[in-house]
Amino acid sequence: LIRVCGPIIQCQLLETALLNILNFQSLIATKAARVCIAAENDAVIEFGLRRAQGVDGGLSAARAAFIGGCAGTSNLQAGQQYEIPVSGTQAHSWIMFFEKESEAFQIYAKALPNNCVFLVDTYDSINGLRRAIKVAKQLQKDGHEIIGVRLDSGDRASLSIETRRMLDKAGFPNAKIVCSGDLDEFTIAEMKRRGAKIDIWGVGTRLTTGQPDAALGGVYKLGAVRAPHEQWQYRIKLSGESAKTSCPGLLQVRRFHQLDHRFIADAIYEIDHVVSEPCVIVDLGNETHTEIPARTEYSDLLVPIFRYGELIYRVPGIEASRGYARKQLRRAPPAILRLNKSRAYKVGLERSLHELRSRLIARAREQRD
Amino acid sequence: LIRVCGPIIQCQLLETALLNILNFQSLIATKAARVCIAAENDAVIEFGLRRAQGVDGGLSAARAAFIGGCAGTSNLQAGQQYEIPVSGTQAHSWIMFFEKESEAFQIYAKALPNNCVFLVDTYDSINGLRRAIKVAKQLQKDGHEIIGVRLDSGDRASLSIETRRMLDKAGFPNAKIVCSGDLDEFTIAEMKRRGAKIDIWGVGTRLTTGQPDAALGGVYKLGAVRAPHEQWQYRIKLSGESAKTSCPGLLQVRRFHQLDHRFIADAIYEIDHVVSEPCVIVDLGNETHTEIPARTEYSDLLVPIFRYGELIYRVPGIEASRGYARKQLRRAPPAILRLNKSRAYKVGLERSLHELRSRLIARAREQRD
Repeated sequence: LIRVCGPIIQCQLLETALLNILNFQSLIATKAARVCIAAENDAVIEFGLRRAQGVDGGLSAARAAFIGGCAGTSNLQAGQQYEIPVSGTQAHSWIMFFEKESEAFQIYAKALPNNCVFLVDTYDSINGLRRAIKVAKQLQKDGHEIIGVRLDSGDRASLSIETRRMLDKAGFPNAKIVCSGDLDEFTIAEMKRRGAKIDIWGVGTRLTTGQPDAALGGVYKLGAVRAPHEQWQYRIKLSGESAKTSCPGLLQVRRFHQLDHRFIADAIYEIDHVVSEPCVIVDLGNETHTEIPARTEYSDLLVPIFRYGELIYRVPGIEASRGYARKQLRRAPPAILRLNKSRAYKVGLERSLHELRSRLIARAREQRD
Repeated sequence: LIRVCGPIIQCQLLETALLNILNFQSLIATKAARVCIAAENDAVIEFGLRRAQGVDGGLSAARAAFIGGCAGTSNLQAGQQYEIPVSGTQAHSWIMFFEKESEAFQIYAKALPNNCVFLVDTYDSINGLRRAIKVAKQLQKDGHEIIGVRLDSGDRASLSIETRRMLDKAGFPNAKIVCSGDLDEFTIAEMKRRGAKIDIWGVGTRLTTGQPDAALGGVYKLGAVRAPHEQWQYRIKLSGESAKTSCPGLLQVRRFHQLDHRFIADAIYEIDHVVSEPCVIVDLGNETHTEIPARTEYSDLLVPIFRYGELIYRVPGIEASRGYARKQLRRAPPAILRLNKSRAYKVGLERSLHELRSRLIARAREQRD
């Protein structure tokens, strides 16, 4: 929730820009968090620029993915512009440029002896791995260690197990296995379930575009208007679907939490209406009431950012935003973070706001011409 | 298909930019064409900036949607930058700003008497329509005609039929009915089937982001390399899936057509290999052969754009690109343009290229270390 308060024309000018930025970047940060949850403690690198929706779609996706938990991006411009760690490995075209795969590895190793992640699947992953190990041994004699190898196609759960075995046996227990190619939170979770030995995940298209949800449906609604020196008049938009009817008023979000800081539920309330104690939260879908016991700990989430046109908020660096997101995710009920059969987090209207909304719905329906 | 030929480093630098631009804009132009086919001869306006993937995602989507067949966009920057017609109607916030809906219509009509498309669903579409008609009659007395009304929610197929009836009865047979809200080619086709009386469709999120296909999976592959003054050496990347194994060589596309210009099939061929006559096209999925009768008309699709760093192609204006797309779509077999149970267009490798590819696959598999 964001609250914008100001002269109507200025507020209207902000609408599309705010929606565009928030809808898309929230979508990608959420997707990144899901992918990182599936990857457990492994590093996830955002790899999707070539399939992103526009150049700046790729750029802002890299930023949002980092905040959502990714460890880096292959997008160099995002790295430069937002100070996100960049990383990447060899491309297939590097391998294909040479007549033989082993030659491609050797020449790369000569040029960048301390930065070798050999891409082994151009012709056949296991044969490629054998050739990579041969070059890695030569490098080792010269005093360098490979970083690892990358598997980009085929049955990577099985391949990674065999790759780990071969690398260990050849004396490279610290070599990392990078996995990429058509990944998302579900394929990663499935590979984990099958015992895949992957250290780093490169996730592209479905992370950078949010597939299968290419858009988050955030809206920007007028909640109240007032003439100079007068009272606020609340406003509402009706809809056949209850959840699509807008919320009137100047809104704030109260997040209740347990003593161990775990989140319980969020109540949206109107700032000029008294929040009942105990607080009753009304679900917008099924109208059920949830009572939060009196004296439950809470925090109000909205903080002022601009006031009278001045930025009054210390904008955190991207690392701090990422740390904040990680901390908040740790406080969320585990059941809402599950990839399958997840429970919805409890969010609803505080009772006074729900009553205000009901009165306004009735009044709007009775409106005379 | 695009062919890039040049020093390897330069070709590599182009990879990500070309893929990003072509994958995304082809996706959206295709989606727009599908939406326009569903809308039959009605105008479709692109409405999706607030849900687009980044600001420039919205901008390039507006451009691609116009080329794919849309009549305009609500994105003012795209209008200015690409000379795409812009249009839009009232926002809900305009209506909600006033205490009464009729007041919102009246004040709008006073300010823009020749540009009224009243948004009628803020409280109740039929009541809103009644109020809009009242204001339209007043406008008419003053010598102005409304352009129309917009339905943004509810059962718009039924609502549009009732709206048409009420507008006609009130003496506004030329008033247009604009429909918007969660539309795509399938919802439009379904509303058409139910007899909806819509003149203009405003399509947002699912057009601008391509949902449910948020990305087109185009790739950029090395087909051949050569040292100065030497012969081309063909290159291939293998994959467990036949269709994902790359195509070697310097490629061109030959599109065969009937005497009435209707497309028959496309053959991808290698420019230094003789195209057999009759041409045999090998399907990459199931390896079936299709023979194109000798002396069938064709055109080769790739034309030079840059040569030795110079632009040698006259870049068409956006209207010309749009006209070209429309003309090409009219020449496509109708069965491939159906929204449901569509047939795939026949595309495959010309036989000599298929043989070259098979030889290279065998050789890559036998590669010695």
